[in-house]
Amino acid sequence: MEVKFELDGYIELSEEPEEKVKEDILEFIKENKDLLEKGAPKEKGSEILSLELNENRLNLRIHGDRFVRPHEGLIRYINPLSDEIGPKHHIGVRSIGFNDYKIKFNKIEQSKVDKIKNEFSEIKEIKEINKKEKDKQLEVSLNKLNETEIKSGVIDRLFKLILEYMEEDEELATKVSKIKPGKVLSESKEKKAKLDEDPTEVAKRKGWVKKFPGKGQWTYLPPFMKLFKAIQRISGNEIPEKLDFSEAMFPKLIPLEVMEKMKYLEGLPEGMYYTCSPERKPDIYELFKKELKIQNSPPIDILKKGLNDPGYVLAPAQCEPFYQLFTHEMMDEENLPIKLFDSSGFTYRWEGGGSKGLDRVNEFQRTELVWIGKPKQVETIAEEIVEAYKKVLDDYLKVEWYIEVGDDPFYLEGRKGEMKDIEYPDIPKYEIRVNMPNGESLSVGSVNIHGTHFVEGFSIRSQSEKPLWTGCAGIGLNRWVLAFLAYNGFDPKDWPRKIKEKTLPLPDVPFTLEWPEKQED
Amino acid sequence: MEVKFELDGYIELSEEPEEKVKEDILEFIKENKDLLEKGAPKEKGSEILSLELNENRLNLRIHGDRFVRPHEGLIRYINPLSDEIGPKHHIGVRSIGFNDYKIKFNKIEQSKVDKIKNEFSEIKEIKEINKKEKDKQLEVSLNKLNETEIKSGVIDRLFKLILEYMEEDEELATKVSKIKPGKVLSESKEKKAKLDEDPTEVAKRKGWVKKFPGKGQWTYLPPFMKLFKAIQRISGNEIPEKLDFSEAMFPKLIPLEVMEKMKYLEGLPEGMYYTCSPERKPDIYELFKKELKIQNSPPIDILKKGLNDPGYVLAPAQCEPFYQLFTHEMMDEENLPIKLFDSSGFTYRWEGGGSKGLDRVNEFQRTELVWIGKPKQVETIAEEIVEAYKKVLDDYLKVEWYIEVGDDPFYLEGRKGEMKDIEYPDIPKYEIRVNMPNGESLSVGSVNIHGTHFVEGFSIRSQSEKPLWTGCAGIGLNRWVLAFLAYNGFDPKDWPRKIKEKTLPLPDVPFTLEWPEKQED
Repeated sequence: MEVKFELDGYIELSEEPEEKVKEDILEFIKENKDLLEKGAPKEKGSEILSLELNENRLNLRIHGDRFVRPHEGLIRYINPLSDEIGPKHHIGVRSIGFNDYKIKFNKIEQSKVDKIKNEFSEIKEIKEINKKEKDKQLEVSLNKLNETEIKSGVIDRLFKLILEYMEEDEELATKVSKIKPGKVLSESKEKKAKLDEDPTEVAKRKGWVKKFPGKGQWTYLPPFMKLFKAIQRISGNEIPEKLDFSEAMFPKLIPLEVMEKMKYLEGLPEGMYYTCSPERKPDIYELFKKELKIQNSPPIDILKKGLNDPGYVLAPAQCEPFYQLFTHEMMDEENLPIKLFDSSGFTYRWEGGGSKGLDRVNEFQRTELVWIGKPKQVETIAEEIVEAYKKVLDDYLKVEWYIEVGDDPFYLEGRKGEMKDIEYPDIPKYEIRVNMPNGESLSVGSVNIHGTHFVEGFSIRSQSEKPLWTGCAGIGLNRWVLAFLAYNGFDPKDWPRKIKEKTLPLPDVPFTLEWPEKQED
Repeated sequence: MEVKFELDGYIELSEEPEEKVKEDILEFIKENKDLLEKGAPKEKGSEILSLELNENRLNLRIHGDRFVRPHEGLIRYINPLSDEIGPKHHIGVRSIGFNDYKIKFNKIEQSKVDKIKNEFSEIKEIKEINKKEKDKQLEVSLNKLNETEIKSGVIDRLFKLILEYMEEDEELATKVSKIKPGKVLSESKEKKAKLDEDPTEVAKRKGWVKKFPGKGQWTYLPPFMKLFKAIQRISGNEIPEKLDFSEAMFPKLIPLEVMEKMKYLEGLPEGMYYTCSPERKPDIYELFKKELKIQNSPPIDILKKGLNDPGYVLAPAQCEPFYQLFTHEMMDEENLPIKLFDSSGFTYRWEGGGSKGLDRVNEFQRTELVWIGKPKQVETIAEEIVEAYKKVLDDYLKVEWYIEVGDDPFYLEGRKGEMKDIEYPDIPKYEIRVNMPNGESLSVGSVNIHGTHFVEGFSIRSQSEKPLWTGCAGIGLNRWVLAFLAYNGFDPKDWPRKIKEKTLPLPDVPFTLEWPEKQED
């Protein structure tokens, strides 16, 4: 959300300077206006719109943004100015203050204004300006504050508080879900799991998988892979293809600029891997190779000098490129809904200490469905997908499943700090779960409806200005295989016919004299 | 390669100190021995084995490694010591020097010793010690050098030169290839490309692909993807599967420790993406989110405080996990060769300024074949794969191809700075190329034989101690599709029957009112 700060402030001097000294002072202020940009990105920060020295009062009109709030700019002038005029002219800076200070937020609904007004005593007045819908703004003007109050950071706190307020307000909004999270919508009949131990342990023992050095990473060997491919193909045919989704291939290395539009960085920044590209610095890399040769282990500090700042994350959601594909595009309502799916590689989540076994991994394969359309279309598609899930879980995987209303749809994280209303569906998230032998229930996929969240983040429009919604659904293939093995065991002769057809004969494990620990068959 | 430095050196003082001052000095040396570890990894660096002050000469026996060479340690003592005893006792440091300085390299063949000896005047003597094969070493002892010479860095240069020497020697070895790189081994008959323009341009215009914000990245839309999948399936059936390779699923995020064994970091460190995992620093991420909310753009400097050093690269070779799978394992010769392939996702190369169109991308899909066995087995498999390539390129893709002896097999990069001999095949690399309409030839894959390179790097052994070789082959799917389109055009009715069967009907492009520029059909 855009925020503008408009300050009508002043710096009060200990006495009125003589004319030529006044010149000096005004000069000094102008020459040092970079103080108002320090620490802000290019083109950002505060700027002085008018400047005059009246008796002993230096009046400044300063406009600015989040990066350098104008009152902060005022503070930054105090010391340099004192150092300049103190010794030279024996004039000191007595105090700073303002006659008027406005903070303007764009896109604010009337409905929420009054509530905010009553919340903060520092606020003199709140009113909506520019009645015209498109450039409507909320203008918050502040009561006068003295230098100590200004320096105390109360203004920034107030500003943050308004944002927080909007956030809470937002969260309330998201709770308006006709059906309570956790409510079970449907479930399979009871089924008996063939395995009574952790499938990960069996898979390791049989050499179907082997731990890879990276945290939460595994190498998957031929018998596992044959089963994986079968389940990937079946679920692909029965869910996206049967529902007329077309296959696309989405990038898996996502620039931060795209993640910003996703609002993922606000959500779980500590849950992603960050990637840096090399800079063009031949000397650094020469040095790196030389030292590597001498030290025989990579000199990381030199390497870091050769890398750009983190500019990417490894795709956490898999659907990011779908919204990017249509960003700033005007959709053709005749050509909706658009339904694509991707099954072209790994996606990643940093599980911190949480990664364990084959069920909680940092690197995993999914078939991801994404669609965009009119609200009704989007909801219908979601329901169709849920039905298709059930059928595959019953007919092919033979597992005991249930579907509940999911809480915390991942994308709502990103709404925080934004007051703007977005449309929400009755059920933003269906969570599909399988009861595992160890008593835990394993989420094997979810079907999400985002309302207008991503359409707004990526500014995707329709010619009629009618709202568009998006949805996405994930088929967690690694977990599907795991659930299948828990319920059907590792011996293919116990497997359902439709799976046998696609997996037999199972290929061998590429065993050595030392691995796997113990050959079974 | 392991290198040890053994210095019998001294620090000469301006005069002989009294007894109690001697105590002082010895104390000071001992208390400050961390000078010998500064900048070195834990447990590394130099250490003092003996220390005595004889008249005005302080004798130190120092042993060290690449991280802190002992003579460097000696130099580090000069100033601190002067500062300590100068003011206190009016004694200065006159000079440093050594009576004997040995550098010991492990695993050196007799054959190369003499050559080295004649190369460097600074070398007093070179001899082999520990005749027992396993702990044989090359001992290089140096002539006495004065302080200026020591400080001049001549010793480090000498040391590097020896490494360089070994390197050249290594490169010579690799050039022993019975057939000259660039030599064409076989070629298809002439074929006429249907397209007379750049397939990338057509694909963009028709909306089969759309540029993704990341450098060298694209989103591939349904018509392209349908063709891609067909070619992926066909090449998978006709090459790995027909040759009894079993499909596995390899991780695509590779820890640096694995890349070290690959010797890739010595090769092209500036050609890879580096990835960092988040550190457990809740406060940092709280701050990150707060500032992000206020500034509305991610505060990278805060983020960087929350990340670990780069610990991974995005898989550049795709076969890394295969060697890792068998690292430190004893192979069962009865169970060789082992043949696996992976087609489970993207691999990455940082092309710097070089990325262009769909042919030179940073993010691409490959089917990668990897195998290990006895030398003869490995060579036979390579030849079979080359034959299979030809067949697919002729029967299905209908492109004009040729196969040449590749130069610079990527893995040889890594041999630099290593003297140890490894076995090489006659032809380490077959390069498969397609002549594109623009006159350029596009490499669409290569078949590599690594000899004992990776087996040594990952210490993979066989019970009979007989050498094992490895090989890998890549099917560059993105480029296969591109070559196919160049020769067969974008109109399915012109495509070969076997491709039509798997692609028709082609799905639609998910067009909007503004994209693609121009609808064609």
